[in-house]
Amino acid sequence: MNIDMIRAAAQRLEGHARRTPLLSSPFLDEIAGRRVLVKPECLQHTGSFKYRGGRAAVSALDADLRARGVLAFSSGNHAQGVALAAREFGVPAVIIMPADAPTLKIENTRALGAEVVLYDRAGGESREAVGDRIKAERGLTLIKPYDEPEVIAGQGTTGLEIAEQARLAGVAEADVLVCCGGGGLTSGIALALEAEAPGLRARPCEPEGFDDATRSLASGHIEENDAPSGNICDAILTPSPGQITFPIMQRLCGPGLVVSEDEAMQAMALAFQRLKLVAEPGGAVALAAALFRADQIEGDAVICTISGGNVDAGLFAEALTRFGG
Amino acid sequence: MNIDMIRAAAQRLEGHARRTPLLSSPFLDEIAGRRVLVKPECLQHTGSFKYRGGRAAVSALDADLRARGVLAFSSGNHAQGVALAAREFGVPAVIIMPADAPTLKIENTRALGAEVVLYDRAGGESREAVGDRIKAERGLTLIKPYDEPEVIAGQGTTGLEIAEQARLAGVAEADVLVCCGGGGLTSGIALALEAEAPGLRARPCEPEGFDDATRSLASGHIEENDAPSGNICDAILTPSPGQITFPIMQRLCGPGLVVSEDEAMQAMALAFQRLKLVAEPGGAVALAAALFRADQIEGDAVICTISGGNVDAGLFAEALTRFGG
Repeated sequence: MNIDMIRAAAQRLEGHARRTPLLSSPFLDEIAGRRVLVKPECLQHTGSFKYRGGRAAVSALDADLRARGVLAFSSGNHAQGVALAAREFGVPAVIIMPADAPTLKIENTRALGAEVVLYDRAGGESREAVGDRIKAERGLTLIKPYDEPEVIAGQGTTGLEIAEQARLAGVAEADVLVCCGGGGLTSGIALALEAEAPGLRARPCEPEGFDDATRSLASGHIEENDAPSGNICDAILTPSPGQITFPIMQRLCGPGLVVSEDEAMQAMALAFQRLKLVAEPGGAVALAAALFRADQIEGDAVICTISGGNVDAGLFAEALTRFGG
Repeated sequence: MNIDMIRAAAQRLEGHARRTPLLSSPFLDEIAGRRVLVKPECLQHTGSFKYRGGRAAVSALDADLRARGVLAFSSGNHAQGVALAAREFGVPAVIIMPADAPTLKIENTRALGAEVVLYDRAGGESREAVGDRIKAERGLTLIKPYDEPEVIAGQGTTGLEIAEQARLAGVAEADVLVCCGGGGLTSGIALALEAEAPGLRARPCEPEGFDDATRSLASGHIEENDAPSGNICDAILTPSPGQITFPIMQRLCGPGLVVSEDEAMQAMALAFQRLKLVAEPGGAVALAAALFRADQIEGDAVICTISGGNVDAGLFAEALTRFGG
């Protein structure tokens, strides 16, 4: 796992992944007490950065292997990223989703051309057993959501863009706050910054109660969350940092930042009002940290990702009602 | 008023105005029955394309004149565009706003450094009388919202970007649907496309009951709206096309397209869901036309602007509640 893989992924993503802009608002600067630069991956295809990793992984496969198809476990953003990438290559994608996943997410994944296989979360069969059976029968390749070098390389292309855009914006030294689940985006960005913008430092951002990366960085070994779910930041709830992602984060990242659910919701409302962007709760934690953890950040500028925007209309309306101007 | 002025404005805006991306979603393509490419000027500084015209006009002024300051009448997007441009040049901006304008818009304009002068809409003094007095006292230059060549030139830079981005997307022939109030953006884009992408044709889009541009193009002379207000698309309600903008539109634009308030609201909900963008009602009429007036459009692709995103949280939440997925 190294910078060359990220550069190679960037070449394969050229003309496919969107180069998202770097946005700002004087109103956000005022709240944060410093310049705030926002990298809105909610504007990426499928509404999250996950398309980068999905496309990078699918495009890295040997053509014969790829032709048999790919497999992913996901109820969310990774599903859609892999589904779109597979469709672009004209190869089958099988996505294993829980039967009780939101209807809209199941429909979206199907609409992107994937075959959705539902499993009963409460029933006997584990999703791994379902996946292993289908994989063996059809010779599919599993695309893991974060602990997979080509996926990390794809997410890391976000970091190459940040490095260049920060340079153009005149920012040579700053923390880069990254919404962190399993650490694919965080470690990919960290590797890209190490090579291209050594004055920029990645830091994972997480919701309270699911701060496994923050605690792992503090203790020096992989820590797990107590609960598997139970937070509105659903897109970034993972049990622990990955075996591949954590050593990278440990070597390169600054301390983690932790925000509350309400702070994530408030950041959603501010992204609506000041940036005209739709952020999902998990996608808003880095902006929340930039705005509401200013005392834990140094320097004249801070850069933060908005990692995705796949949020239900009802929850978004609630954020506006509670925190909208 | 010609393409050279637009190219000169683009040079002056370089490094200041954002180059907004050209976005798309397979889900919108399916609704429209053709490829839909969206130019999101809601992501422009101050949340609307108006910053382009404001900056172009302020930057075109003789330095001595500019130093005395600028004046604008506006309760909305033009106010913020001019205020930010003036602040960037370090010159005073006086914005005349109705005393009953939304508090948030008054506060935003003040926060951008402008001096806001309120006038009583119901009382005796006309805003023109207030403006004339201040202008004379201080030697301010009035920046008109649309019927002003340098403002049209600034808005036209949107068209230069569309021409280049459409070419990169492989679209040589298409209608370009533009949210239309007084016609500054529509005529500016039309001039840019004439020079840079002759296969692309601008068409104004308006809300029902405020279709002055559409009727003017049909009759061949400037038509007025019956009412001055009374539609949620507040940003694009103007009495009639301008004396400068209309002849340009007449020479270059295709027929207008008209949508209902509900269709604009539905387009807002779809921009939320499929593009992760915040559109204001007036900023959503072109997307609504692309999606819901497909029978009035020809070709494999259509391009549409989202002209702004300055919408109150309550109204946006209402659009999501009524039309969200």
